[in-house]
Parts: sequence; structure tokens; C-alpha cells
Amino acid sequence: MPTPADSVNPPKSLDFFRQAYRMRVDDLLAQRKAGKKVVGTFCLFVPDEIIFAAGADRVVLCGGREDTIPLGEQYLPRNICPLIKSSFGSIVGGCTGKGEACPHFGAVDAVVGESTCDGKKKMFELMRQFIPTYMIDLPQKPDTPAALRYYLSELEAFREYMEQLTCNRITDDRLQEEIRAGNELRKLMQRLFAYRKAARPPITGLEVLQVTQRQLFLSPQQLKAGVARLCDELEGRTVDHSGPRIMISGCPMSAGNVKVPRLIEERGAVIVVEESCTGTRAFDSLVDESKPPMEALAERYLQIPCSCMTPNDRRVERILSLAKEYGVDGVVHYSLQSCHGYNVEKFKVQQALREAGIPMLAIETDYSASDVEQLRVRIDAFLEMLA
Amino acid sequence: MPTPADSVNPPKSLDFFRQAYRMRVDDLLAQRKAGKKVVGTFCLFVPDEIIFAAGADRVVLCGGREDTIPLGEQYLPRNICPLIKSSFGSIVGGCTGKGEACPHFGAVDAVVGESTCDGKKKMFELMRQFIPTYMIDLPQKPDTPAALRYYLSELEAFREYMEQLTCNRITDDRLQEEIRAGNELRKLMQRLFAYRKAARPPITGLEVLQVTQRQLFLSPQQLKAGVARLCDELEGRTVDHSGPRIMISGCPMSAGNVKVPRLIEERGAVIVVEESCTGTRAFDSLVDESKPPMEALAERYLQIPCSCMTPNDRRVERILSLAKEYGVDGVVHYSLQSCHGYNVEKFKVQQALREAGIPMLAIETDYSASDVEQLRVRIDAFLEMLA
Repeated sequence: MPTPADSVNPPKSLDFFRQAYRMRVDDLLAQRKAGKKVVGTFCLFVPDEIIFAAGADRVVLCGGREDTIPLGEQYLPRNICPLIKSSFGSIVGGCTGKGEACPHFGAVDAVVGESTCDGKKKMFELMRQFIPTYMIDLPQKPDTPAALRYYLSELEAFREYMEQLTCNRITDDRLQEEIRAGNELRKLMQRLFAYRKAARPPITGLEVLQVTQRQLFLSPQQLKAGVARLCDELEGRTVDHSGPRIMISGCPMSAGNVKVPRLIEERGAVIVVEESCTGTRAFDSLVDESKPPMEALAERYLQIPCSCMTPNDRRVERILSLAKEYGVDGVVHYSLQSCHGYNVEKFKVQQALREAGIPMLAIETDYSASDVEQLRVRIDAFLEMLA
Repeated sequence: MPTPADSVNPPKSLDFFRQAYRMRVDDLLAQRKAGKKVVGTFCLFVPDEIIFAAGADRVVLCGGREDTIPLGEQYLPRNICPLIKSSFGSIVGGCTGKGEACPHFGAVDAVVGESTCDGKKKMFELMRQFIPTYMIDLPQKPDTPAALRYYLSELEAFREYMEQLTCNRITDDRLQEEIRAGNELRKLMQRLFAYRKAARPPITGLEVLQVTQRQLFLSPQQLKAGVARLCDELEGRTVDHSGPRIMISGCPMSAGNVKVPRLIEERGAVIVVEESCTGTRAFDSLVDESKPPMEALAERYLQIPCSCMTPNDRRVERILSLAKEYGVDGVVHYSLQSCHGYNVEKFKVQQALREAGIPMLAIETDYSASDVEQLRVRIDAFLEMLA
């Protein structure tokens, strides 16, 4: 799991996140030996609360590595997104010994997939040939009562699946506990991001990625301890950043994938917020603790403004409000190659940002280094325009 | 609307299908003047029965033309499927006068979209800026009772939408009538396809395309009359075809798109069946006339083996059974460029065909002529292997 380029003077408490990988893998393997079930997930639409309430653990399996892609491409078309090919290559590599795989891929009993995009949805069918794979269907019109009912029924079925997998009953009380704990963690992530609203943010985008890329990988306890320490260190810390303030919006950036943020910050800009599943979408809304737990989970999760939703005006509005809150000078719209959802939605984002007078640069890229020089030229020109 | 290359001695009754386009457009425009509502559709998952029971008409708007793509690409990414770009370009061209459009695009009051694939789903959001667009959400795990309930609720909402659009009530009786009429038409199409099972099929694949590409464009009355006449003509007709018998399976081929079938039949093979939305998926299962109409519609339509479904084993099984029924020597798997659904599913189709000992050639292409020579070489080699 490569780490982002170090900045000149990174917060000391980031060390923990760099070291956490090995610790976490050892911990997972030890837990599994002791009988705990571990599931691999690929998406924010799979509620952690249900997994934890079953006494299971989870790690995100979204791949950000380039070296597992060739193996993935033996099964999948080349022209689908690198995240899918990288993840699939890791699973196949780990299960067959034919290729590279991060050690945590070997720590999962089953994969929990979802129907967020065509590529992933169909990839899960092939994955089933290598590892048990459960699918959650996701309605894609998020604002109708029928969609909410359907998603709720899918989450109820998932709850039963987790009960069977773990032989533990998932009580409403346990769900409520996990909801409260999840909300606390979300508030802590919100606190971390709030420091970035300062005129001189005490942390860079590349540094924050070291945390956010591990959000769904670490245990909640590890993440909480690490982020709390980091927040305390950022309190009152001042750093000189004078470049333009950038928002990255679009596809997730899985661990290993820092190409575009590095190019942006190498040129003197500072990334102040990520509107993505790696960023704000993971934590910027809470689960309602006053409602019956399953309903509350369904409601909260169905509102995640992923481009799989139609229409997804919620994302466009969120980009505009984040731009204001974080004093953003320009937006880099980030699509993984052949991600039709974000690539098409880009048009509406561009329309809205143009109306708001905020410049946008659209990047579509994969994990390879082949377009780095071209991207550098485009990013340079964009930042120059903002200066 | 270009027509497929004429064969040496085509059935006489195909003339009707070649002439039907202009007649149908004139008819639609006249009907609209008289107050009838016309909706444009893009997919088999939108039940005709509901539209007709509302006293409305429909035409399919899936584009098979290449010349409307450049206008589509002003809004959409280049690396999505040509069908989406072509259709969108026609809509924009028709609505703004900026470009080409088939006249029937101007005959619709509204578009009825669905969430079958990422590209189309998101394209409909942009389409709404040009023409009223209604969306039907589609569950993607077809075999659960919850998915059926959700799809049924989406069809109920669509029924209400059609009632509002037309100011007509959709009674169960009217639905039953349309279901019966729809089934009759399906049986007629089954009869047409059955002739192709003969050792020497009395009609070629290119000739059949002249009918199937107009299935959702003509009125049911026109289609019925035309296909009945054609079937009568095929009765007892013998034609010399000695080349290999090919199944095409995969993406739809919209009117205007005959590139691959032409290449196959130019080389002496005969296409005996199309496992696609242009082909068997449109008619090979009937609506249960003994059940309450909306439930029966939801059940039948949700079983369409589109690659948007997961898992889609039904399609793989259907390919194997069709191969047997039609005495197929080889399968050409046909994907439109960047259609992730069919492109990924191809792997499982290939696995199943390999096990069954049936050779498969995988083609991914767009509407341009740029790869014709390359395709010709590959198709030649494939057919030679079958000979």
C-alpha cells in the first residue's frame, strides 16, 4: 500500500496511519483465527453498522494499485475502470496465487458487493467464482418512498445474511450502539475536515488522504484514536500555503492512488476538500438516532450522492455548498477511466460551477504513469488561471 | 433510416418494411395533430401494454445512425456506447435544429427512460433539458420477491404518469386487451423466427433485421400485418444457404446499424438467430393472461435477460438452448463499444459456450467504418474455422 509523497513538515500523528496497515492486517488475521468473520466491501452503500452489529469486521477491498491490473484484465475488458480491474486482480491473485495481492485480501471470508455501477455489478459475478460474494441491490431513484422500501428490504436481507455468516443475532440494541459509534466517528471526520476551512489549512490534501484512504480499512477504534490525535495536533497549527484552494470531486481514490492529488499539490496548490466517497460522502451526514435503526440506516445511506443515483442533484448542490464553506478557488473533476456515471454527470457539474463562477478542470485517468506529463501541463495551466 | 443490403432474392413482403418508415411517421404526426400522445422509449423494460392502454402511441428512439454522434459528443463523453450518443445527438438535433434527426424524433411528447445501464441512465438526465423525460427505476437482482414488488411499484407509478399525460384512465380491462394483443404479436414473431430453424433458412439475418429493427417503431397493427404476410411467403420457400449457421448475441442493433451482420453474411454465413433486445428477448416469453395484469406485466418484463441483471444466468442458459434449437455452428458475441454490462458478461458466455463445444467470436465495435477491414479479417478467420 504505497503512501502519498511526504510533505516537508507533516503532522507527527500521521505516522500512525502509515504504520497502521501492518498492525491492522495482523489484527485481522488473529481475529479470524479466533473465529471472527471478516467481510470485504467496495462501497459506502454497504452499512458498516450492520456488519459490526453482527460481531464481524470489515475491510474495504477497493484497489488503487496498478500492478494487479494485468491479472484483472485476463478476465475483464481493458476499457473498464482501473479500480475494478485492480480490485479484481488482487482477489484473483490472492485466491489463486497467480499474482500480487495486498495481504488484507486474504483476510476476508466473503465479499459484499452492490449494484452501484455496471462494471462493479458484473465484476462481482466473476468474483463469485473465487470467493463467496453477497450482493445488495440498490435502487437508483433515491427520492421515492418505494425506493426507500426496496433498499430497506435489501438491508434486511443483508442483516439476515450477516446473521447466518456469523451465527450471531443482530439486535436493534446492537444496531443502535453501532449507529451511535458510527455517528461519533463521522463527527470526528467532520472536525478533521473543518480545519481545512482555515485561510491557511494546517494539513495538505495528500496528508489527509493518508487518513481518508484508510477510513474503511482500519477498525473504527483505530481510526477514532488516530483522527482524534491528529485533530489535537492540528489545533492551533499554522502552515504556509499560499497557492490556490482546490476541491477534488468525483470518483473515489483508493489506497495506492494519489497521482492527481500529488500533481496538484506539487505545483503549489492545496487541496482543501474532496467531494467523493474517499472524502465528504463517507461522513458528512449522520444516521438519525431517534428512529428505528434499520429505517434510519436505509434513509441515511440512500442519500449518499453517488453518481449512480438519478437524478443526483444532491451532489451538484453539495459541490456548490462545499465550495463556499471551504473557500474553493477551483474544482478538479476527477473521473476514473470509463466511469460512465461520473463522466456523464460531469456535464451538469460543469454547468452549475460555470453559473457559480467557479472554474473546473475535468480529468479522466487511470492508475498508470502514461499521462502524468500531459496531466501536469493541464493542471499547471488550470492553476495558473486561478492564481 | 438506412436499410440492410438487399439479398439477391429477398422475400417480396419485405418491401412493406422498407416503405413503412415514411408511412408511420406521417401517421404519428397526424395522430398527434388529432390529440394523441406519443412517447419515445429506449428499452424493452418499458411495457408497451401500459402505453397503449392509455390510448397513447410509442416509438423506439434508440439510434443506430453514425451522423448524429458528433452532436451527442458535445454533451457526452466520447467513450460511451454509440447507441447512447447517436440517440442523444438525434434528440438534441431535433429539438435545437442544430443537427440531423430522424423525423420520428420530432413526433414524441415525452421520453420514457429506465435505469438499465449507467450511460443511458445518466444520459436521460441531460435529455430532460431538451424534452420531458420520465424515469422508470429497475431493480437489478431479478429473482427476489422484493425486486418484483419494487418493479411493480415503478410500473404502477408509470401507469399513473401515462394517465396524467393522456388524461385517460388505464383500466385493467384495457391492460388485459393489450396483453392479449401483445402476446399474439409475440407468437407471430416466434413463428417468423421458427422458419430460421430449417436446414436451409428461407430468410437471411439481414432480411430479418429489416423486420426486427422496426418492431418497436411500427404500430402493432402494421407489424402484425407485415409479419403475417412475410410468414405466409416464407411457408414452403426454399433458399440455398450452405455457409455456417451463426447466432448473434449481445447488445441491440438499432435501425441504421447493420455493420456486423452484413460482414457475416457477405462472407457466406447465415445468421439464424439474434439473442438480443432486437431479437429473441423482445418476444420469446409471453405475459401470463390469467393473472392480474400489472403483476403479470411486472413478472414477464423483469425476466428479460438483459446484462443489467445480476446474476444473469438466464441469458447464458438461453444462449445454450437457442444454439441447440437453431442448430448454431458458432456465436458472435456483439458488444457496443464501452458497454460494460455485455463486455463483462461475455466472460461467462464464453465459459458456457466453451463447455458446450460451441465456438465464439467476441466483437466490440461502434457505428463507424474504421474497423470494418479488421472485423472482416477476424470474421473470415472465424467462419473458416467453422467450415
